[in-house]
Amino acid sequence: MEQITSLQNSRVKKWCALHKKKERDNTGLFLIEGEHLAQEAMAAGCIQEVITDEERKLPFPKVFYVTPAIMKKISENVSEVHLIAVCRKPDLLPAKLNRVILLDGVQDPGNLGTLIRTAISFSFDAVYCSEDTCDLYNDKAVRSTQGALFHIPVIRCNLNDLVKNLQKDGFKVIATSLEKSHTIDEIPAEEKMAFIFGNEGQGVHKNLQACADDRLRIDMHGFESLNVAVAGGIVMYSYRQK
Amino acid sequence: MEQITSLQNSRVKKWCALHKKKERDNTGLFLIEGEHLAQEAMAAGCIQEVITDEERKLPFPKVFYVTPAIMKKISENVSEVHLIAVCRKPDLLPAKLNRVILLDGVQDPGNLGTLIRTAISFSFDAVYCSEDTCDLYNDKAVRSTQGALFHIPVIRCNLNDLVKNLQKDGFKVIATSLEKSHTIDEIPAEEKMAFIFGNEGQGVHKNLQACADDRLRIDMHGFESLNVAVAGGIVMYSYRQK
Repeated sequence: MEQITSLQNSRVKKWCALHKKKERDNTGLFLIEGEHLAQEAMAAGCIQEVITDEERKLPFPKVFYVTPAIMKKISENVSEVHLIAVCRKPDLLPAKLNRVILLDGVQDPGNLGTLIRTAISFSFDAVYCSEDTCDLYNDKAVRSTQGALFHIPVIRCNLNDLVKNLQKDGFKVIATSLEKSHTIDEIPAEEKMAFIFGNEGQGVHKNLQACADDRLRIDMHGFESLNVAVAGGIVMYSYRQK
Repeated sequence: MEQITSLQNSRVKKWCALHKKKERDNTGLFLIEGEHLAQEAMAAGCIQEVITDEERKLPFPKVFYVTPAIMKKISENVSEVHLIAVCRKPDLLPAKLNRVILLDGVQDPGNLGTLIRTAISFSFDAVYCSEDTCDLYNDKAVRSTQGALFHIPVIRCNLNDLVKNLQKDGFKVIATSLEKSHTIDEIPAEEKMAFIFGNEGQGVHKNLQACADDRLRIDMHGFESLNVAVAGGIVMYSYRQK
């Protein structure tokens, strides 16, 4: 059992540095908060070490006992947290590939996390993110996934190249768009489908829309505007795998 | 044209006080940020006064010109904001009542705002919130509505009483629940329907579930867990008014 009491301890500094994307990219590590997420990470074999300010035995391999002040310094939550885990980024591969989503520049970490959580609920096989989609390993995004990031491959890549590869592989690629588009009822389910969701303000890039096989809009009246995580939920529900 | 340069000015203090729910409740006022929301508020006749640090003519009745430091003090956004409006809470009444949602203890302001935004997109007529649902006029909730709060009545009331009244009025009241419930495909659309969504952790209170005419779940595999705003989106889309 290792105890740390100084805010200046080098480990504490290393943990805090993981709040920055650059450090997460360099180390392949990220932080999660709370026991629920830690257990999901443990089951996925992604736990590196665990930090707590509670004196109790924990079912994790390497535990550091720290002061509440250190805990507060490492935590990104407003409310009190008693368990933080340092995790290795999961490296999952899709077992099969019939339903995928492509996220083209989604900016809000809450939306990103929620889309991943929804994808797994409707048995989607993978989530692909453009280079300019926000970082999955930021605190808000991780929390919004509710642990789903340990169960579904999330892959960052060039979406233009990906779309071509998916099409070669027999996928019907569908971009969400309000213009010149079909409703969900007008686009029948097929074996292999990929859906592209865009940035909160700009939507899907025009060049990606042009590569897609079809364009889809969600039938609605009035406001003509849905949050991207809600739109994603409706589309993934409508084309869910059973 | 009125100018304010002191951070200690009594108006500045009054505006900042509106960050607190108690002050918003007492005054019936709240703050919105950015030109898009201000225009929605203006169209709805809810603008009391506008605050800006930019020297340009604005199409609002009463404008205060302030320093960037004052602007920063009043704003709740991380990024720079150049227009803040003090608004009166809208007092809308539903024109007709065929589709409504009931929010039973929704805690996250982003979820609340998103549910309201979605409700208007699918032509729902009103949103009812339990007393313990989070405040609609908090900055995050207002932003998540994207202005929808100026277009749809949002009413805070006792949901148990409301359910009884809706049922007298011919509504079919449906609680979302994972247990002993029917899927969307099993519950046909009727003329008057009310859907209850619950707290992010606990779901719909058991006593409210017991009052409902039916229980609904969203058909899914795997994770068995959806964000409440996503669940709301799928249900409202499925029972949208055309």
